[in-house]
Amino acid sequence: MAGLKLHGCIWSTATLRVVACLNEKGLECNEHKKEPFISLNPFGLVPAFEDGDLKLFESRAITKYIAHEYAEGGTKLIYDEGKGKKMAMVTVWMEAEAHQFDPLGLGTKTKLAKVLDVYEARLSQSKYLAGDEFTLADLHHMPNLHYLVTTPIKQLFESRHHFWAWCINIMARPSWLKVIEMQKKEFSADS
Amino acid sequence: MAGLKLHGCIWSTATLRVVACLNEKGLECNEHKKEPFISLNPFGLVPAFEDGDLKLFESRAITKYIAHEYAEGGTKLIYDEGKGKKMAMVTVWMEAEAHQFDPLGLGTKTKLAKVLDVYEARLSQSKYLAGDEFTLADLHHMPNLHYLVTTPIKQLFESRHHFWAWCINIMARPSWLKVIEMQKKEFSADS
Repeated sequence: MAGLKLHGCIWSTATLRVVACLNEKGLECNEHKKEPFISLNPFGLVPAFEDGDLKLFESRAITKYIAHEYAEGGTKLIYDEGKGKKMAMVTVWMEAEAHQFDPLGLGTKTKLAKVLDVYEARLSQSKYLAGDEFTLADLHHMPNLHYLVTTPIKQLFESRHHFWAWCINIMARPSWLKVIEMQKKEFSADS
Repeated sequence: MAGLKLHGCIWSTATLRVVACLNEKGLECNEHKKEPFISLNPFGLVPAFEDGDLKLFESRAITKYIAHEYAEGGTKLIYDEGKGKKMAMVTVWMEAEAHQFDPLGLGTKTKLAKVLDVYEARLSQSKYLAGDEFTLADLHHMPNLHYLVTTPIKQLFESRHHFWAWCINIMARPSWLKVIEMQKKEFSADS
């Protein structure tokens, strides 16, 4: 564990995606805010992550690594080898988050409404995106959901009952509440 | 194998990503071009994929499923469990493709040049993106590379020697040449 280092910014949704994942796994991580990132992430974006001599970037690659490498502790988040079809559904909804949901934080309200209708239909069939259990597919949505509920978009969420119940449910997870606490402390320290 | 069905369009880069993957694994697939996709892909985009009763969408989720589920035949494309750190590098460069490289087909030339510099640096260290072997990380780039080399952007590729050697190398793979043949046949049939 001592080898885990996260280089990021507490206001970046991508960084928070990794922090929430570490919290779900009960892993402690040293934060290094001031170091230059460029040697770790050649694209110069946060977050970057180190586990001993392994250096990773891209938030969703980091969460997948953590979920596989530290499979035993905390929330499972993924399915084991041999459960290919269950894992495939996690992957499908991780890709949906990255390509349909995430960019829509910046997209048009009409397009967002259509995407939310797809989520509503899905979440009327199962409690979580990939099935009955909370997985990385749900976790990847947390940071953008957190910001979107502070905007008028919240109305689009609330009018879709299964989506809204899912949203309230996952945002109440201890792993996410710990992220909020961390942000509050940082804000107090800054001001 | 008889259960594999691909719903897509031979001119869509996302569909071709899946076709190239099937070719690498030596898998045959029934194509269903005329069926309605919406029941398979709720976002209404191609491709969609069926393996028996499993229905998947999002091209990169489909390729990951194929690589894991049909791990034994054809090119390996991924690393096994227990090789977490090697697989993490495949994941990092799959995410880089999806979030840094892919959207740049539509981005500015200056931003593309910067991204290509990162690829050039990486490919000066290893033959393929994730290391010494061809993996899904490389494969995911093929469809966009194929179209970009027909544009003036080709000059940006050629001036980066490691990138260009990698590009020529992966585009000459039998799995990709088979895709080109398929497009040619389709074009002849259409015209």
